[in-house]
Amino acid sequence: MSSSRRLGIDVGGTKCLALALDANGGVVDEQRRPTPKTADLLIETVTELAQAMLPWDSLGVGMPGLVTRDGTLRAAPNLVGVNDLLVGELLGKRLGCFVRVDSDATCAAAAEWKHGAGRGVDDFVMVTLGTGVGGGVVANGALMRGTNGFAGEIGHMVVDPDGPPCPCGRRGCWERYASGSGLAWLARRVHDGKGIMRVIDLAGGDPSQVRGEHVAAAAREQDANAVAVVDEYSRWVALGLVNLTNVLDPAMFVLGGGLAVGADVFLAPIKHWFGELLYAPDLRPHPSLAFAQLGEQAGAIGAALLADLH
Amino acid sequence: MSSSRRLGIDVGGTKCLALALDANGGVVDEQRRPTPKTADLLIETVTELAQAMLPWDSLGVGMPGLVTRDGTLRAAPNLVGVNDLLVGELLGKRLGCFVRVDSDATCAAAAEWKHGAGRGVDDFVMVTLGTGVGGGVVANGALMRGTNGFAGEIGHMVVDPDGPPCPCGRRGCWERYASGSGLAWLARRVHDGKGIMRVIDLAGGDPSQVRGEHVAAAAREQDANAVAVVDEYSRWVALGLVNLTNVLDPAMFVLGGGLAVGADVFLAPIKHWFGELLYAPDLRPHPSLAFAQLGEQAGAIGAALLADLH
Repeated sequence: MSSSRRLGIDVGGTKCLALALDANGGVVDEQRRPTPKTADLLIETVTELAQAMLPWDSLGVGMPGLVTRDGTLRAAPNLVGVNDLLVGELLGKRLGCFVRVDSDATCAAAAEWKHGAGRGVDDFVMVTLGTGVGGGVVANGALMRGTNGFAGEIGHMVVDPDGPPCPCGRRGCWERYASGSGLAWLARRVHDGKGIMRVIDLAGGDPSQVRGEHVAAAAREQDANAVAVVDEYSRWVALGLVNLTNVLDPAMFVLGGGLAVGADVFLAPIKHWFGELLYAPDLRPHPSLAFAQLGEQAGAIGAALLADLH
Repeated sequence: MSSSRRLGIDVGGTKCLALALDANGGVVDEQRRPTPKTADLLIETVTELAQAMLPWDSLGVGMPGLVTRDGTLRAAPNLVGVNDLLVGELLGKRLGCFVRVDSDATCAAAAEWKHGAGRGVDDFVMVTLGTGVGGGVVANGALMRGTNGFAGEIGHMVVDPDGPPCPCGRRGCWERYASGSGLAWLARRVHDGKGIMRVIDLAGGDPSQVRGEHVAAAAREQDANAVAVVDEYSRWVALGLVNLTNVLDPAMFVLGGGLAVGADVFLAPIKHWFGELLYAPDLRPHPSLAFAQLGEQAGAIGAALLADLH
């Protein structure tokens, strides 16, 4: 089923990354462009990138946001004014071929499934812990899309209906706690600035500049207050992983995103809390926690693989 | 793939129901026995039932509890002392054939998928609102089992980590709120007995005897306090359905179990809260809410269908 040369383009919030894969999935060519801010220019940029990478046999595109099964971008938090953009159709007309489109998180899951941490695993969930929390699901040995194409919006599971407001308009979404910004928020909230002096030092002395990575760095230095915040953060991460396990019973979670880079600090407390919160924890092997292997290339590699997976 | 005569046995908390299906899925024979309380007697009873229903071409068994993919019952809340019971293997030896075993909720989902409310739907979730909350998932046009066979344990999604204790040992599991006992608990808690006089009347005057159906009945009479409890209950039900939608993006929920019988009272408030709590509610059709059509036969019908679905 593999085409000989498959092109994948990952449209990110700031840049578009195009990768060409050979028949074995190896990256054989790469180009990037800044992501433009309007819908028209976006289609134009992706078209130009695709043409600049010719020849190729198939094209897949990963988009940040809600992508329908027929390749329409319903909305994208980071692309201003982009609503109901017929990405697949518009690119298809310009390029004269069928263009597959899916969400960047689903593409990343596909990439890790075929060439990364999830190789050979029939049931796993890719969880990206970054500014928000994204997800992609492989179940029954197939990429799960859902009826509209919106499966895997795991960051918006509500884990505390009276929790803090989320930019999505609801309260207590998982990503309010489990994302990098969630970790920083937990740090500022729990200690009201006073207890996290080392964290604030690492953020340049300004509490408003505290990011998740500063908390992780202070915890890595064994700063007791930072360790306590990391423990609370890990409990929230585990809570979401537990809910996903109760629903999907995966063999593995593949953790990606900026926070996964420093995950040595989180791994033990996440596993601890996972065991505390899981239903029937003694009656099954717990899903393994693996780290994404494809880094920032995952979206584009997965987009290129869509040709084999649809 | 259909066998000519398929037997399904649903092992319930109080009775075992055996149904024989013809090639079209019609029920052509039925027998029942009380569910015995020990593991040995359980295997014996199911064996006898199967023999009493001869001839058949295939046998499937639905069990309440955690069933592994190879047919072992790891644990069953309602069957005392039953742990790691090799149901499939033991029955297979006695009956001299391959016996398929799955959880009762997965069986019920299979039945509704093939012959009930979910006919022709590739992505739906069966949700049984009874004493607890059970579930079965159809995704990508396939029955979802998960890596261990434990997918669909949706009642133990944690929706409030500081919520009331659950018999499972954790806190704030969805079924603490969304089950019939959850509804009764919300009624007793919110109004501390005083505001729900009509509900208590309907329960025979004893607050400790209040069950979900009494709250529903009082709400159906427009008792204002009962209506308020139903609204809060519906918000919790919706919260779980929303989380499932964010993960799975189903086209439909099929509601079953004792509470679904009186669901006229819950349907409008569940839909209201679903819209309030769902991520991006304006950007997609909401999953439809349908009612299970196969009633107490669903588990046995689905067990009989396992032969076609493995």
